[in-house]
Amino acid sequence: MSVLYLLDLLGTFAFALSGALTAVKKEMDLFGVVVLALVTAIGGGTTRDILLGSTPVFILTQPVYLYVSLAGAVCTFLFYKTLFKINSIILIVDALGLGTFVCIGLSKALTAGISGPGAVMLGVITAVMGGIIRDVLSGQIPSVLTRDFYAVTCVAGGILYLFLWRQNMAADMLLLLTTGFIFTLRLLAIRYRWNFIKAPYSGPET
Amino acid sequence: MSVLYLLDLLGTFAFALSGALTAVKKEMDLFGVVVLALVTAIGGGTTRDILLGSTPVFILTQPVYLYVSLAGAVCTFLFYKTLFKINSIILIVDALGLGTFVCIGLSKALTAGISGPGAVMLGVITAVMGGIIRDVLSGQIPSVLTRDFYAVTCVAGGILYLFLWRQNMAADMLLLLTTGFIFTLRLLAIRYRWNFIKAPYSGPET
Amino acid sequence: MSVLYLLDLLGTFAFALSGALTAVKKEMDLFGVVVLALVTAIGGGTTRDILLGSTPVFILTQPVYLYVSLAGAVCTFLFYKTLFKINSIILIVDALGLGTFVCIGLSKALTAGISGPGAVMLGVITAVMGGIIRDVLSGQIPSVLTRDFYAVTCVAGGILYLFLWRQNMAADMLLLLTTGFIFTLRLLAIRYRWNFIKAPYSGPET
Repeated sequence: MSVLYLLDLLGTFAFALSGALTAVKKEMDLFGVVVLALVTAIGGGTTRDILLGSTPVFILTQPVYLYVSLAGAVCTFLFYKTLFKINSIILIVDALGLGTFVCIGLSKALTAGISGPGAVMLGVITAVMGGIIRDVLSGQIPSVLTRDFYAVTCVAGGILYLFLWRQNMAADMLLLLTTGFIFTLRLLAIRYRWNFIKAPYSGPET
Repeated sequence: MSVLYLLDLLGTFAFALSGALTAVKKEMDLFGVVVLALVTAIGGGTTRDILLGSTPVFILTQPVYLYVSLAGAVCTFLFYKTLFKINSIILIVDALGLGTFVCIGLSKALTAGISGPGAVMLGVITAVMGGIIRDVLSGQIPSVLTRDFYAVTCVAGGILYLFLWRQNMAADMLLLLTTGFIFTLRLLAIRYRWNFIKAPYSGPET
Repeated sequence: MSVLYLLDLLGTFAFALSGALTAVKKEMDLFGVVVLALVTAIGGGTTRDILLGSTPVFILTQPVYLYVSLAGAVCTFLFYKTLFKINSIILIVDALGLGTFVCIGLSKALTAGISGPGAVMLGVITAVMGGIIRDVLSGQIPSVLTRDFYAVTCVAGGILYLFLWRQNMAADMLLLLTTGFIFTLRLLAIRYRWNFIKAPYSGPET
């Protein structure tokens, strides 16, 4: 419990930094920095809760996530120069958050009685929707749709989680293995600059 | 029942193709192709369910729509060149889906006790919201807002549905007439390149 | 009650004008004008209802807001030249709406048992989310994130509302003081072209 909770808060903080840094780059004001930190950190979990009908959504009943996101926004606003420099550390914490968010999403979905495919989808949504909203609000095509190996690690991790869960694995082991798997895969993807496959389209936009 | 269900799946598939083709044109990777297929095919129905409070939303409890959308994404990824060539066939199936989606939206809204204007709005949302999300995620102003005669056919069809429903018409006839009406109007609009009226604004962006 | 209701409808109308004018500037068709009027006027309240789980959302059960928004769209479509000229009057009514929307959002949140920070967040969302959706649908980075002193007045007003509510102030006084405060602050911000603080970032997008 307490390890999952800690990982969750850590991931929330890293996601908030990522959103806030995007806002600073786009020359948004402090309100924009706060909004992008918030939507990046809690947009995935909020979307999951809305789709499940688990309302009021978690951010309204557990203000700690609001505070952690705000802290990320303020840190970024004050120390963005330093944060740009230690970007690789942020990426590592972000990868931890990614794994945790997928597990939490799947766990909530399966608990709510959602079947396998829907549960994997909710796990992935929990992990990537925040970044998608961040990119839409900053006027970019969501990076997760065009390049990188970010979402695929979540899909693979989600399927692993589902498989192990069906073997009745204990919750702790389940979390540890899935988060570890996503974390490792994500770091490998960063290290070796993996990209996911694309259709070789290069014609005019018909 | 079974005809409506078949039309619904067919429409879902056509919408998924439309989303996936947009993703290929925008040079997204396979994950982006899957996401755009999904949001285009099920974004409208999901938004309708969220606004009604009908949760967990249908896509989480009826995985068949997930599979049909995924099939559309994979087909597009493999055969996008062929699909670009038979675009006019896709447009025809898309028009069938459009009619079906409007009917399903209105039917669910009226069953949930929503009054006329809200029900028409939900019918239109069911039909057009997927395409709007597709365009936002691919960095474009939603085409349904700027040109074409796409949404207007849904509004007209929705009003027709409401009118006939108030005459206590049998559900089958209601569906047949409304879908047929939207389908015909949409094909005429494509054939004669109809556009909806615009304000003749051409000044600077004040 | 009746004053709040009147202010609410007036604010809805002003927000609808703002959305519709954006659509005209972007050369959208009449459907686009209607959609942008609607999302700007009711997007904030609808988002609030979704996050709270207060469904069907208000727009489906209280069609008067739909009619007021449609009226705003039609007025704009017909008289946009005049409206561009009296833009300063629209801004004043918009400021009234801003104050009212914050109060309604906080009131609904606190009634639903949401604690302070979440309630302030919902008040701000009620007031600014419509404009954010308007800007996303018209292909712009939301102006509320980048410049101006629009959202900050809502945050300040929301905190004031919460503070006074905790002093058990009567509902009428609460509404009057908070709306007056936001209205005044907003007009001052327009008059003196206030902007909220920014990080002095001007480097490359790292």
